[in-house]
Amino acid sequence: MKFSNLRQRFGRGIETTAEREEEDLGLGNKIARKPGTRLINPDGTFNVIRRGRSVFAPYQNLVEMSWPRFIILNLLAYTACNLLFALGFYLIGTDHLNGVRGGLTNWGKFLECFYFSIQTFTTVGYGAIAPISAASNTLAALLALLGWVSLALVTGLFFARFSRPTRMVIFSERAIYAPYRNGLPSLQFRIANKRDTNLINLTARVVLTWLEDGDGDLKRHFHPLSLERDFVSLFPLNWTIVHPIDPASPMHGWTKADYCQRFSELLVTIEGYDRTFAQQITIHKSYTYGEMEWNVRFGPMYHEREATTELYLSRISATVAVGEEE
Amino acid sequence: MKFSNLRQRFGRGIETTAEREEEDLGLGNKIARKPGTRLINPDGTFNVIRRGRSVFAPYQNLVEMSWPRFIILNLLAYTACNLLFALGFYLIGTDHLNGVRGGLTNWGKFLECFYFSIQTFTTVGYGAIAPISAASNTLAALLALLGWVSLALVTGLFFARFSRPTRMVIFSERAIYAPYRNGLPSLQFRIANKRDTNLINLTARVVLTWLEDGDGDLKRHFHPLSLERDFVSLFPLNWTIVHPIDPASPMHGWTKADYCQRFSELLVTIEGYDRTFAQQITIHKSYTYGEMEWNVRFGPMYHEREATTELYLSRISATVAVGEEE
Amino acid sequence: MKFSNLRQRFGRGIETTAEREEEDLGLGNKIARKPGTRLINPDGTFNVIRRGRSVFAPYQNLVEMSWPRFIILNLLAYTACNLLFALGFYLIGTDHLNGVRGGLTNWGKFLECFYFSIQTFTTVGYGAIAPISAASNTLAALLALLGWVSLALVTGLFFARFSRPTRMVIFSERAIYAPYRNGLPSLQFRIANKRDTNLINLTARVVLTWLEDGDGDLKRHFHPLSLERDFVSLFPLNWTIVHPIDPASPMHGWTKADYCQRFSELLVTIEGYDRTFAQQITIHKSYTYGEMEWNVRFGPMYHEREATTELYLSRISATVAVGEEE
Amino acid sequence: MKFSNLRQRFGRGIETTAEREEEDLGLGNKIARKPGTRLINPDGTFNVIRRGRSVFAPYQNLVEMSWPRFIILNLLAYTACNLLFALGFYLIGTDHLNGVRGGLTNWGKFLECFYFSIQTFTTVGYGAIAPISAASNTLAALLALLGWVSLALVTGLFFARFSRPTRMVIFSERAIYAPYRNGLPSLQFRIANKRDTNLINLTARVVLTWLEDGDGDLKRHFHPLSLERDFVSLFPLNWTIVHPIDPASPMHGWTKADYCQRFSELLVTIEGYDRTFAQQITIHKSYTYGEMEWNVRFGPMYHEREATTELYLSRISATVAVGEEE
Repeated sequence: MKFSNLRQRFGRGIETTAEREEEDLGLGNKIARKPGTRLINPDGTFNVIRRGRSVFAPYQNLVEMSWPRFIILNLLAYTACNLLFALGFYLIGTDHLNGVRGGLTNWGKFLECFYFSIQTFTTVGYGAIAPISAASNTLAALLALLGWVSLALVTGLFFARFSRPTRMVIFSERAIYAPYRNGLPSLQFRIANKRDTNLINLTARVVLTWLEDGDGDLKRHFHPLSLERDFVSLFPLNWTIVHPIDPASPMHGWTKADYCQRFSELLVTIEGYDRTFAQQITIHKSYTYGEMEWNVRFGPMYHEREATTELYLSRISATVAVGEEE
Repeated sequence: MKFSNLRQRFGRGIETTAEREEEDLGLGNKIARKPGTRLINPDGTFNVIRRGRSVFAPYQNLVEMSWPRFIILNLLAYTACNLLFALGFYLIGTDHLNGVRGGLTNWGKFLECFYFSIQTFTTVGYGAIAPISAASNTLAALLALLGWVSLALVTGLFFARFSRPTRMVIFSERAIYAPYRNGLPSLQFRIANKRDTNLINLTARVVLTWLEDGDGDLKRHFHPLSLERDFVSLFPLNWTIVHPIDPASPMHGWTKADYCQRFSELLVTIEGYDRTFAQQITIHKSYTYGEMEWNVRFGPMYHEREATTELYLSRISATVAVGEEE
Repeated sequence: MKFSNLRQRFGRGIETTAEREEEDLGLGNKIARKPGTRLINPDGTFNVIRRGRSVFAPYQNLVEMSWPRFIILNLLAYTACNLLFALGFYLIGTDHLNGVRGGLTNWGKFLECFYFSIQTFTTVGYGAIAPISAASNTLAALLALLGWVSLALVTGLFFARFSRPTRMVIFSERAIYAPYRNGLPSLQFRIANKRDTNLINLTARVVLTWLEDGDGDLKRHFHPLSLERDFVSLFPLNWTIVHPIDPASPMHGWTKADYCQRFSELLVTIEGYDRTFAQQITIHKSYTYGEMEWNVRFGPMYHEREATTELYLSRISATVAVGEEE
Repeated sequence: MKFSNLRQRFGRGIETTAEREEEDLGLGNKIARKPGTRLINPDGTFNVIRRGRSVFAPYQNLVEMSWPRFIILNLLAYTACNLLFALGFYLIGTDHLNGVRGGLTNWGKFLECFYFSIQTFTTVGYGAIAPISAASNTLAALLALLGWVSLALVTGLFFARFSRPTRMVIFSERAIYAPYRNGLPSLQFRIANKRDTNLINLTARVVLTWLEDGDGDLKRHFHPLSLERDFVSLFPLNWTIVHPIDPASPMHGWTKADYCQRFSELLVTIEGYDRTFAQQITIHKSYTYGEMEWNVRFGPMYHEREATTELYLSRISATVAVGEEE
């Protein structure tokens, strides 16, 4: 108990079978009991929809929305804001602006105001058009300040989006059911690091979840899987994560059919420290029974050259049928 | 002892009843003994006022002050700074500025200087007015540099304010006194995550504090409450935090009246890791005896759809009287 | 051993007497053996000078140097850079610049070039002077780019300096030798938080260091001091850190004279998490024997108002002679 | 088992011989078995090449590429982007731009467009050339916005590169084989901190790796080395890291020849907390058998002055033959 406590304190939430037979990650046993529903989507997000009490979190939204949406949004805001100020200058009157050509239609005048507004907003300020009255100067002063701030905010957002850690870890497409030591079978999947030394101190955690009849109605079960190795300090090559299906394993004695009938799903959490961004990174991934492959083993992923080692990332999912190259 | 030490080292400060019967979070037992005084305000700040030795922490103040105050402050600084430089240019003389229209009153001249100052400060630089002498050029050079730096600082502050983690965790309005397993009562409250996967590895800590007569004068007591579960690694749905009132609980045998007479207050600390901001987050909250509800239980908050689960955030405080839907 | 290991892993480096009788923080026992030399300066830096192998760490230097130096440095760089480009434009010839008034001395021409350079560097670009040839335009293009980048770097540095955590923790001027429970004496000092809720989860560590004759020559000894309480999770008020001088303490039986003759010094490390800056903070402080006060106790620092508590920061060092207000 | 788990959770990955006889840091025993191949390059990167599945991580690449490459890249992008827009303005026609001198060749006109484009992109906007039609104004508006954003991104990158932690820890050029206590030999190397107080709470980890015949083919072995001291909380001076070659050491009984024949390599990991950057830092280093020195000991690195201590960084690798100054 003390130790499980202890372990929890690490903000890592690693549990091992030894400590808590059943654990539910805080999800409860009533979630997603519709057969075939997956808990974690392929992209690592949860298969949950939130309703009501809309969240106002502009920053997160702006940082997380798609690039096209973000750019369009910016262009719209940029235009809208300048149209507004253009209107302002137009209402003040173009005679307050020096350099506006004579003999223009109202629309033409408005356009001139619009262009002037943009030139001020972006602080380009050609001066071909320039404010000459108190009114126009004051408005321009406000506009320039607003421009500075909003453009800087926009570029700050650009940078924040741009500098977010890219997902550098690739997973094998499928988890495999492969023979292990002394006759035991095992569940395996493997990951690799797309780049050189940015990830260190990786921890892996795998929880099996499945549906089962508990007194009448379906209950969702969760069971952490003990791993042959759940930590690597360096990650220059690939890492195959192995759960030996020993008597202690919840899958002990399961037939291939069981995996399907129980709608089993492997919930994977990989944690590590990204040195480029100097932050802790957490990656969620799940393998459903449909994403498992049987009686194969992973093929080699790297090859020794003369004075170095070559890692072939494209081989991450490469498997060979058991019995071959035995 | 070793373990409590150990646990303290995590910068988490989680204690469990097993380790230290009485603990005071470093507050001492003489604080806030005026009956009815709450320790933690509803907004999570402490009910403490600081006197003397004023703190000069411009950054924190500017980041933490309200938006309206911040904006007004900026506008004032912006104007003040430009008025100052306008004065400079005015004293140098408008004949050092090219483009200032002739036949202007002193006030008119000063205005021109003011507008020119702003155009330089914001680096708009229309050029309708431009410095033509060494004096005016030098002043303008300083102004432009100052403008760049201060505008960038301001926008940096804007961004810092804008990009601060928003409070994403919502609490049930009240803590409830609800029946628990095998006849035991329990104290419960629940939290939910307004957004999807930004919070992971949450730890909950609850400390009960109350006033009691200790040899003559009132003493404030603190007692950590053991929780049915004090950690969840994932937080896609709601989390009900439950303290079973067993014989080990300081509230064991308390009547409803006791909670009120002892001015009891629940001090809640929720810690978790925010992935959007890649930082550890700590939320303080407190429930006073006045914010407790009796003999109810929390209603369900989520519902299973066909291939997903729906969470209704607006139901966070929804309770049903015990006995109903039993 | 395992536990000391364990504890070390926290990147906290907390040791308790139980684990290692002698520890030297990695300083060795030969450092600073000149009687009267202090290890840690009052400002928390080490009393060590580095020689040779000069360090090229521009960022750290620019962030850590004093404000006046930083500003002067910037002004110099700003001027130098523009003088350089001014020279460039001058050599190209002022006839490549439109708007330079005729009939100017060489110096006058150079000045015009200088002002134009600044107007371009700061992207003000009045246009009163503008490049009209390929040569001048190209130079201006480079200058504008350089200006953008360097001004942004400068402002980035400004912001980095500006947004560094301010030291919010104040210490009592002196450590005191005060009576403790059941007849034991104790060493005490206290700290307070200048602002509201920015610091949480504070850990205190105190190591006593002194000089002693070890077979012939002076040896510096280090000994961690066990504390009555070495962790507080909340820090709204003051925290008095107490080391009971019990038989296990290295100072057990020391006379007032011993503290002086042994040139004893208390090395204090306070660690905590700053929520405004979302980072771990470490503060070093030391009390030499000359900064100790005898047979006093700390006076109260806060007072209970009607519905709140008031903390008087100016009373941080306030002591009362033992015997009074007993 | 529990403890090794525990230790792993710290994201530190420190193992001690006691816990796991053999460990491979996640590298497996088949890596780099070509005699003479080193695992970690002198610069701390891994001696591994990645093939296939190209990584699109613009930010990391831009932050990590060399300065010259970065600057050239920027200049190219800057030019390319403006050439593109110049083409746009040229196609619209120079009659849409006010201030373009008459009687220019097409090339001359294009140049004018190019310079105008740059003046807009950098928001200098002299105004000597200014857009006068809807088409040119719109294009200019887009260009100004693009300029703002991209220049800000570039400067953001500049700052990100500029503000990356510099490597402040220097290592002795060679690891030495030196006599230790009671007749035992030891492996030693030492590190020092180039600057004052920026690094605290350092942990050292050393793993020995070597090649050996394992049933027929070469196998790579890994063995963590127990250290006399693997943690220092303060780091004002130098730190000599010592592995006593006791019976528990994998090198126990090795001759000088063995180190060479087994192509042994010391894998060093230093972790610490950088206070200037408020982040955890990890440094990798390796010493091959060729980088070892025999029967010497490190000379003193610091000297006591009157009221301070002087550290001579240039002496980091200074050794004296054993027997001298004994």
